[in-house]
Amino acid sequence: METISENKAFGGVQGVYSHQSHTTRCEMTFGLFLPEEARDGPVPVLWYLSGLTCTHENAMVKAGAQAWAAEQGIAVVFPDTSPRGEGVADDDAYDLGQGAGFYVNATQKPWAPHFRMWDYIAEDLPSMLQEEFPLDMSRQAITGHSMGGHGALTLAMSLPGRFRSVSAFAPICNPTGADWGRKQLQAYLGDDTGQWAAQDASLLIRERGFDGPILVDQGADDQFIDLLRPETLVAASAESRQEMTHRMQKGYDHSYFFVSTFMEDHVAFHAEALYAD
Amino acid sequence: METISENKAFGGVQGVYSHQSHTTRCEMTFGLFLPEEARDGPVPVLWYLSGLTCTHENAMVKAGAQAWAAEQGIAVVFPDTSPRGEGVADDDAYDLGQGAGFYVNATQKPWAPHFRMWDYIAEDLPSMLQEEFPLDMSRQAITGHSMGGHGALTLAMSLPGRFRSVSAFAPICNPTGADWGRKQLQAYLGDDTGQWAAQDASLLIRERGFDGPILVDQGADDQFIDLLRPETLVAASAESRQEMTHRMQKGYDHSYFFVSTFMEDHVAFHAEALYAD
Repeated sequence: METISENKAFGGVQGVYSHQSHTTRCEMTFGLFLPEEARDGPVPVLWYLSGLTCTHENAMVKAGAQAWAAEQGIAVVFPDTSPRGEGVADDDAYDLGQGAGFYVNATQKPWAPHFRMWDYIAEDLPSMLQEEFPLDMSRQAITGHSMGGHGALTLAMSLPGRFRSVSAFAPICNPTGADWGRKQLQAYLGDDTGQWAAQDASLLIRERGFDGPILVDQGADDQFIDLLRPETLVAASAESRQEMTHRMQKGYDHSYFFVSTFMEDHVAFHAEALYAD
Repeated sequence: METISENKAFGGVQGVYSHQSHTTRCEMTFGLFLPEEARDGPVPVLWYLSGLTCTHENAMVKAGAQAWAAEQGIAVVFPDTSPRGEGVADDDAYDLGQGAGFYVNATQKPWAPHFRMWDYIAEDLPSMLQEEFPLDMSRQAITGHSMGGHGALTLAMSLPGRFRSVSAFAPICNPTGADWGRKQLQAYLGDDTGQWAAQDASLLIRERGFDGPILVDQGADDQFIDLLRPETLVAASAESRQEMTHRMQKGYDHSYFFVSTFMEDHVAFHAEALYAD
């Protein structure tokens, strides 16, 4: 692991690190905020998965999470959204290839060799973090924005016991039924739509649900709301009696101004679960 | 005036606007955060002047001011740091020309026709803001980072009665005595160093002082601290018995992580002055 930068922030340290991933077979960069309390021992961890076009950096500098994480004594991990580099496949579109990993393990050409973001987030990065940093991996929570909200919801439901709470900002809720999803799932997973269902939060919530609280914020004026399909998530969760708070926020759009506005609530929500018992 | 974007944020609106400035004789862009309270009537104004290389955007997305400004019901203005455009003089160096206006009125070639940032901040932009937005111009405060801290301090001291309070994050304190200053003052104002003194906060604080409270935060691990010369400002203010709090913050550097860490304190400091009487 290589340290790219470390800046003191809110009494703790905002670091950026890179490492050679054996999962994505390329160098991966991530951000990690460690609160002051990490000097004295392991602290709980909140994962923040970013959206299309983002790197590890966007949320790290724009989402305002560190102020609240410092207040709660929680670490925040900011992974990248895809493998990157010259030897890694890419596409001219902003919503496919580098910057658009969709948190799945690709099985199709040309993506399969590197685009294994599910395993990277679920296995590779956590094991490295556990070795290198004072993190209490028995206390993890996950959140994300847009494509990252999709990743947070699907990972949380598919890894029972891993995350105590899950939240999302304007998540892609129904990728099997929208252009933000069908295009990428076809490219990464192939034409067999049966393979897609495991990557769809609205389908998973009926099938598996989540054994813990869920919080979702959605801007009513989100310019991408027709691609996100929040109505599928709220219908599925209500029908399956899933513990969830879904807030349709009047006047807010899809930007980081929306995310940062509600970040305090999300960190407090996760802190309650992370510090329970 | 043209609206470039408006995003709901923290109950208010983060806008970006452009206008043709008769002072800098080019199109100028600025950010303005209006809190929810601005719907009901004029609100107090906090100016945030940015540092070298920045546009109106950097602090607007990275400094985290809106959360606290919303809490206090205060507007925040984020001006650009220089005139810009194809017809505007520039230099290859990052610290001269576009992005480096230094908040002075240039008198020298090739800068004089457009580089009039003092008048732009002191006259042009305030009069436009007053016309277009619900701002209470009898309640103004000013802050800034690095070169912007220099601008905030010199403007506040040179316009008595304009600002009720002034603060700065890692300001350039003594531009007549450091490479961050001598180079630019010579380029913009010429070789007569007598013309430079009015642009030096450490000299002004002895000559004029400020009729109100000053708050300055400085990171002890700031990579540019030798260029900033905080020792000149604290010595001058102590000797002239200026009301000032100067905090040397252990471990912090020059980045926005430093700025955002202490933003809550600065906004609260200004709110106290803005809401007095």
